[in-house]
Amino acid sequence: MKFKKTISLLVICILIFFTGCSANTNKEKNTNRSLIGSSDEEYYMVTFLSGIEYWKGCYKGFSDAGKLYGIKTIYTGGIQYDVNQEVTALEQIIAKKPAGIAITCMNPDALKAPIKKAMEAGIPVVTFDSDSPESGRYSFLGTGNEYAGEVAAKALAEQLGADGGEVVIITNPAQLNNEQRVEGFKNAIEENYKNLKIVQIGNGNGDQTEAAKVLSGCLQTFPNIKGVFCTEATSGVGAAASVKEANKVGKVKIVSFDTDKGTLDAIKSGVISASIAQGTYVMGFQSMNFLYQLQHELINPVDDWKNKGINPLPPFVDTGVSIITKNNVKSFYND
Amino acid sequence: MKFKKTISLLVICILIFFTGCSANTNKEKNTNRSLIGSSDEEYYMVTFLSGIEYWKGCYKGFSDAGKLYGIKTIYTGGIQYDVNQEVTALEQIIAKKPAGIAITCMNPDALKAPIKKAMEAGIPVVTFDSDSPESGRYSFLGTGNEYAGEVAAKALAEQLGADGGEVVIITNPAQLNNEQRVEGFKNAIEENYKNLKIVQIGNGNGDQTEAAKVLSGCLQTFPNIKGVFCTEATSGVGAAASVKEANKVGKVKIVSFDTDKGTLDAIKSGVISASIAQGTYVMGFQSMNFLYQLQHELINPVDDWKNKGINPLPPFVDTGVSIITKNNVKSFYND
Repeated sequence: MKFKKTISLLVICILIFFTGCSANTNKEKNTNRSLIGSSDEEYYMVTFLSGIEYWKGCYKGFSDAGKLYGIKTIYTGGIQYDVNQEVTALEQIIAKKPAGIAITCMNPDALKAPIKKAMEAGIPVVTFDSDSPESGRYSFLGTGNEYAGEVAAKALAEQLGADGGEVVIITNPAQLNNEQRVEGFKNAIEENYKNLKIVQIGNGNGDQTEAAKVLSGCLQTFPNIKGVFCTEATSGVGAAASVKEANKVGKVKIVSFDTDKGTLDAIKSGVISASIAQGTYVMGFQSMNFLYQLQHELINPVDDWKNKGINPLPPFVDTGVSIITKNNVKSFYND
Repeated sequence: MKFKKTISLLVICILIFFTGCSANTNKEKNTNRSLIGSSDEEYYMVTFLSGIEYWKGCYKGFSDAGKLYGIKTIYTGGIQYDVNQEVTALEQIIAKKPAGIAITCMNPDALKAPIKKAMEAGIPVVTFDSDSPESGRYSFLGTGNEYAGEVAAKALAEQLGADGGEVVIITNPAQLNNEQRVEGFKNAIEENYKNLKIVQIGNGNGDQTEAAKVLSGCLQTFPNIKGVFCTEATSGVGAAASVKEANKVGKVKIVSFDTDKGTLDAIKSGVISASIAQGTYVMGFQSMNFLYQLQHELINPVDDWKNKGINPLPPFVDTGVSIITKNNVKSFYND
C-alpha cells in the first residue's frame, strides 16, 4: 500500500515535470512572435542554372540560418539557363504556400509577375544576387555591382601595369547584375584607367563553351588584347580555356568573378590573375533571417505597416566583395 | 514517518522538476551558438544629441530585437552636438566590455580611433545612420543618402511646379550623411530639374535656432527664394519657424527630413510641404541582429574568417526612405 502510494506520487511528479517543461516549450512554439520556428515551416531558395557551384555558398548561408530557427529549408530552381524554367519552378513553389521564398532572378522582367503573385498570396519574397526591382519584393540582398565592377577595373589595371592596353569584356547582358558590373567597369576605366581601352563586349550567354568561343574570336580579331574582364564565373572558366588554347597564358590577364573550384584552380595555376569574391554566404544567411522575421512578425516599425505601404525590411543589402589572387587563393577553397 | 517520507519524495521530485527544466535552459544558454541570449549580456546604442526624438525610432528597433534574444539593451550617448562628448561616451562603454555596440557617428574621423579600439578589444561594432567608413566597423546600416537627396529634389521640384525658382539648402557639413544628401540633391537638380537654382548652402549646425537664423538671413539676401531643402529634422523645424516669421508660409516650400513630432505637426499645418522618412526602426532592429549574430558566432561564411580578413556581415544596408506629405502624415504619428 505504502509502495503503491509512493509509486503514484512518483508518477504524478513525473507528469508534473513533463507537463511543466512541455508547457514552456509549447508556449514559445505557439507564439508566432518567437525565434523558435516549426519544423514543418518550409522556406525555399530558387535559382536558375541550379546545378552550378556558385549557389552552394548562398544555400549554405540560407540553410545555416534556417537551422538556428529549427525550420526547413529547400533548394530548387531551373536546371538550364532558361528563364521559363525558373518561372515554372517558382509557380510550382507558390502553389505549395511556403513560409518564404528567396529567389535570384535570371531576368528582372520575366520574374516580376510571379513574384508579385507570391507576395499577393501572402508569401514573403526577397531576391538575392540578381534582383527584379519592380516585383514588389521586400528586399534585395546582393553585391553592390557597379562598385564591384570598379573593383574589377582596378584589379585589371594593376595587372596590366603602366602600359595598359586593349581589353575585352565577356558578360551576360540578360542579367541585371552583369550589366551593372559592366557599367561600373566602364565608368572606372573612363575616369581612372585611361590607358585601358575596351575593344569589345562579348556575350558568353552563361555558358563555358560559348564564352570560350567568343573570346577566341576576339583574340583573333584583336591580337593585341592584354586583358579580359568576365562578369561571372562560367565565362571566366571559359575565358581561361580560350587563353590557354591560344597559348597566351600570362600575356592576356583575366579578371573574373566568384570562387567556384574552376576559378580557384585557374588562379592557383596562374591562368586567371584575380577574381572578385562575392558575399554569397551572407546573401543566403540574411535572406533567411529576413524571411523568418516577416513570417513570424518579429519586425514592426509601425503598427499596420503593411496597409500603410511601409517596408519593414531594408530595400537593399550590399553583401560585399573581396579580391582573390594567387596570394590568398588558398583561403577560398571550401574543403 | 510516512508523512515525512512523502514530503521527502515530493521535495526530491520538485528538485528533479526544476533541475530538469533549468538544465534544458542552461544547455541552450551555455551554447554560444544559440538564439537564446543571456540577460547579463549588454548591447549599447550610442548617439550624439542623445535627447532628440529622431533616435527613439532607432532605439525602439534595437530594443525590440534585443527582447527577442532575451538580452539587455542600453541607450546612451553625448547630450550635446559635441563630438568629444560622444567619443567620451564611447570610451566609457568600451571600458565596460559590452557584448556589442551600435553607434551613429557625429563625425567620421573623430570616431575612427575609438571604434578601432573597441573592435581590437573584441567588441563587435556596427554603425548606423551616420557612418565612419574607415573605422573597421563590420557594417553600416543607414539611408542610401545620395539617393535620398535625389528623392528630396524630386519632392521639392514637384512642390515648385513648372516655374521652379531659387532654392536654398540648410545642412550640417560635419556629418557625412548630410553631405551625401546635399550631393544627391545637387546632382538631381543639375540633371533633371534645371528650373531649380541653388543660391546658397547654409550651415544649421544641428541647432533649431541657428538653422532658423541662417534661413532668415537667406530670405533677406534672396527675397525670391521659393524652396528650402533641410538635410535633417532639427534644421527643418528651424526653417519652418523662419518661414512662419517671414510670413511666407506656402510661398516658400520646405522639404525636410525625418518624422519627429515637430516635423509632422509642421506638415499637418502646411508649413513643411514634405519630409523624407528614414527607416530608423530598421536601422536599430537589424543593428541588434547583426551584433547578436557576431557575439554568438551564428554566422560563419568560412572557417576562421576573422584571420582571413573576410567580413561575415553586409558592409552596407540601405534602410530605405518614404515621402511624407499632408496626405499620409497621419500614419507617421507614433501615438
